[in-house]
Amino acid sequence: VRVFGIDPGSERTGYGCVETDGSRHRIVICGAISSPALASFPDKLHRIYSQLAIVLAECRPACVAIENVFYSVNARSALKLGHARGVAMLAAVEAGLPVFEYTPAEIKRAVVGYGRADKPQVQHMIKLLLGLAEAPSPHDAADALAVAICHVHAQVPARAIGAVQPARSRATSWRTYRPASAPVALRRGKPAGS
Amino acid sequence: VRVFGIDPGSERTGYGCVETDGSRHRIVICGAISSPALASFPDKLHRIYSQLAIVLAECRPACVAIENVFYSVNARSALKLGHARGVAMLAAVEAGLPVFEYTPAEIKRAVVGYGRADKPQVQHMIKLLLGLAEAPSPHDAADALAVAICHVHAQVPARAIGAVQPARSRATSWRTYRPASAPVALRRGKPAGS
Repeated sequence: VRVFGIDPGSERTGYGCVETDGSRHRIVICGAISSPALASFPDKLHRIYSQLAIVLAECRPACVAIENVFYSVNARSALKLGHARGVAMLAAVEAGLPVFEYTPAEIKRAVVGYGRADKPQVQHMIKLLLGLAEAPSPHDAADALAVAICHVHAQVPARAIGAVQPARSRATSWRTYRPASAPVALRRGKPAGS
Repeated sequence: VRVFGIDPGSERTGYGCVETDGSRHRIVICGAISSPALASFPDKLHRIYSQLAIVLAECRPACVAIENVFYSVNARSALKLGHARGVAMLAAVEAGLPVFEYTPAEIKRAVVGYGRADKPQVQHMIKLLLGLAEAPSPHDAADALAVAICHVHAQVPARAIGAVQPARSRATSWRTYRPASAPVALRRGKPAGS
């Protein structure tokens, strides 16, 4: 099963696809979409949308997991982030994929075991979990892989929890987009490379 | 020249197209896009995007004017609005159209002559300016027509200002998306039906 993670941002949108057989995860692709600094805002949005559409068509994942943010530094930055997140979600819907949302704390808990972990910790754990020679860079790409892994862990029944807490998909006023049929349950295995 | 206005919103997105020969404005179309209350958020975004794409293809405007909001009640509502605004902008860019942005105050000044006018005033003036038998409803549709008319007035040189202040396109950190060549200058005429 392939899970595609997105860490949206108007300046840089990270993406990463993870393939899992339930016990081992393997990286399919990761990267970040950024636009020339002088590009207009609509052109930046278009680039996020079109690049994601291309990568989604290549990866053919079963679903998309996206970072959810409820609170932001201020309304202005939230509005800007919303634009990027909106076109990223649209790319997923246009590809016919269900979208799952996780908060930053849920993602960090799922990957590092601590909801307030910093970016280098996330990058380090992504490197270990996916058996990579180096931590993914930029951190947006690592964050996107973390969202994907968070979704994989979220499918594990609570009783199977080990040292790392699985993320829970919270019922919020932002409805989580789920397909009519429940997604295939993934069992959590040992991290690859450990 | 046809100008297409959008008043984005996650629950309801207003749109309206105005045709002008420089002295008279005529309505081409107006309406509002809303989704079933139970639709998922990604599905709502998809509906906004796909419906706008259809109407833009039908109207074939020269450009798109969209309401810009810098401040919102809170970061959460700003984030939600950003999603809708992002996919609306994307629909315009995908249609190959330049996008112009105006703040609510600029739009109200252009249509009512007062930056803090209320919604019924805007609806009333849209009815007068476009020579309509009734004020457009819902107010989102009237607001979208107001954005379009604001853009028409914004093309008038400052010295031609009459009773109604033309909107000024402000240089902001949100870059206004302008085509390489300047848009055709429109002369301001008498409101139709007055």
